[in-house]
Amino acid sequence: MVEAIIWKNTHLELLDQRVLPFESRYETLHTAVETANAIRSMVVRGAPAIGVTAAYGLVLALRQDPSPAAFAEACDVLAESRPTAVNLFDAIEYMKTGLGDLEALANPAEKAESLAIAYHQDDLQKNHAIGKHGASVLDGQRNVLTHCNTGSLATSGWGTALGIIRQLHRENRLNMIYADETRPFLQGARLTVWECRQDGLPVKLVTDGMGGYLMNEDMVDCVIVGADRIAANGDAANKIGTSMLAMAAKFHDIPFIVAAPTTTIDRRTPSGKDIPIEQRPTTEVSHVRGQAIVEEDTACMNPAFDVTPASLISAIITEEGVFRYPYDFSKAAKQA
Amino acid sequence: MVEAIIWKNTHLELLDQRVLPFESRYETLHTAVETANAIRSMVVRGAPAIGVTAAYGLVLALRQDPSPAAFAEACDVLAESRPTAVNLFDAIEYMKTGLGDLEALANPAEKAESLAIAYHQDDLQKNHAIGKHGASVLDGQRNVLTHCNTGSLATSGWGTALGIIRQLHRENRLNMIYADETRPFLQGARLTVWECRQDGLPVKLVTDGMGGYLMNEDMVDCVIVGADRIAANGDAANKIGTSMLAMAAKFHDIPFIVAAPTTTIDRRTPSGKDIPIEQRPTTEVSHVRGQAIVEEDTACMNPAFDVTPASLISAIITEEGVFRYPYDFSKAAKQA
Repeated sequence: MVEAIIWKNTHLELLDQRVLPFESRYETLHTAVETANAIRSMVVRGAPAIGVTAAYGLVLALRQDPSPAAFAEACDVLAESRPTAVNLFDAIEYMKTGLGDLEALANPAEKAESLAIAYHQDDLQKNHAIGKHGASVLDGQRNVLTHCNTGSLATSGWGTALGIIRQLHRENRLNMIYADETRPFLQGARLTVWECRQDGLPVKLVTDGMGGYLMNEDMVDCVIVGADRIAANGDAANKIGTSMLAMAAKFHDIPFIVAAPTTTIDRRTPSGKDIPIEQRPTTEVSHVRGQAIVEEDTACMNPAFDVTPASLISAIITEEGVFRYPYDFSKAAKQA
Repeated sequence: MVEAIIWKNTHLELLDQRVLPFESRYETLHTAVETANAIRSMVVRGAPAIGVTAAYGLVLALRQDPSPAAFAEACDVLAESRPTAVNLFDAIEYMKTGLGDLEALANPAEKAESLAIAYHQDDLQKNHAIGKHGASVLDGQRNVLTHCNTGSLATSGWGTALGIIRQLHRENRLNMIYADETRPFLQGARLTVWECRQDGLPVKLVTDGMGGYLMNEDMVDCVIVGADRIAANGDAANKIGTSMLAMAAKFHDIPFIVAAPTTTIDRRTPSGKDIPIEQRPTTEVSHVRGQAIVEEDTACMNPAFDVTPASLISAIITEEGVFRYPYDFSKAAKQA
């Protein structure tokens, strides 16, 4: 399986997801600022992957300067790189808590490194647990529609929504994956399709508007997506275009499943309307792979996420198990 | 206003909609076969525009060879150019009926020309009527989401869904148009946005997945789209991606309006499941403006239309007036 995040002890290597599937190029990072820039510019993306990357970014920060002031600044720089994925803030909190008083540590960077590696490994284990829990709620042979990328590129490996799909494949219960291209950034076309093909999973590319057709023709019988932040009431923010798929799934009475580690659940955010939605540069909409599709000065919008109401979500699958509407996460062991 | 279809007596000129908005180039057609090819390859698109183009194609056929056999063949060639838009078949029927016995006519091509010009003019008048009827069902100031292109490029001028939007603008009741880019062929980005900008209408480009976000944020308060074929029960086939917008509009309780001339209503098609859906070349999905977004041998799907169930359509606006669910078109004067 492809490794998108490779820790090299002195530096971090990130597979540049902006140039896939046509180039397979790693970017080398030596500082927290470089790491924050890589997150912001989407060299790496996907909520769990962003969290793991930020944890390693803090190791790099401590290597450069182990002072509490420098560390605090590195935390701020990383926290400001992207606003929606709560895993980013969770990873930073985890590192802060794990490190405790920096001045009491003989080697803060070494301690940070073992914490970050543990965080990375833990996320991978969670993915496998999510895969098993998710596959257990779906009976029989399945044709799955998915949106954006939630696989090994978006996580520490294996995947969340794609982890469930991989598990169905392991159980010989996967007939076909229909992957939305996921405009504007084309994570579905460029990443999910590429990753599925690399790993021998059956996949077909569709545009973001084709979900209604696929359901109407009984070509898909469930929708499985990830989440960037889940509010305390179960409203889930995910890649722009997700909420309409949930409305279509409801209309067609097929399961709409959200897969995410419990670190994506944000109990401090009561409902979806409290989740900040990142507005990204509009050139991502006006251009496709660097080529303009409209005249230069055309007004565009580019909200990167939308919120799916909890009532439309059939199940939220975490590493701890399956949650059902109405959502109550108070018994979950870990939450952001 | 831009003229997409220009009849020049000896030939037909079509604005090549495949190269807009970056080039404004007309293609010159002298035969019915050339006309059918232009329809198939989407030099011209939009259900009403296809009908008008086919009518002129039959004039060209009769100029070449006025024999009944050659005319019948030209009718077949044009009818096979695209399968979903019923206006194409309506235009051919209109010409056949209007011409009657070809051998009884002194100059069949001349008769055909006057029929085609009348058909073209009639469609333009219908657009204006649709605009007025449609604007009358929407009160106050409006922020409209639209899909694909239904303006002067898709019709004889003015537009169907965009005709209603133009009428709102005339009445100073249009705040903003949000135009879906409409993948794969980008008719929204390349044509609607361009046409609106040309004519001074306020417009913002969004991707096809952004409708749910816009409704959730109260940024749009109605959806207005066209149709390529409306079944007798009101189910409406329109550009792929339309049906999910209807499901989202239903969930958010905002009007979802379909605008089309009565020639788009096909009483011989009982319901949406009887409407044939064109499957177009998958290179339209795997490429954007000639540039690949996935590896060469990636499996893709490209259904060009989907069907919106009648129960999700708040109103169907025709030149004869407003129809409401449950739809009964038996009193409409004209139907395909």
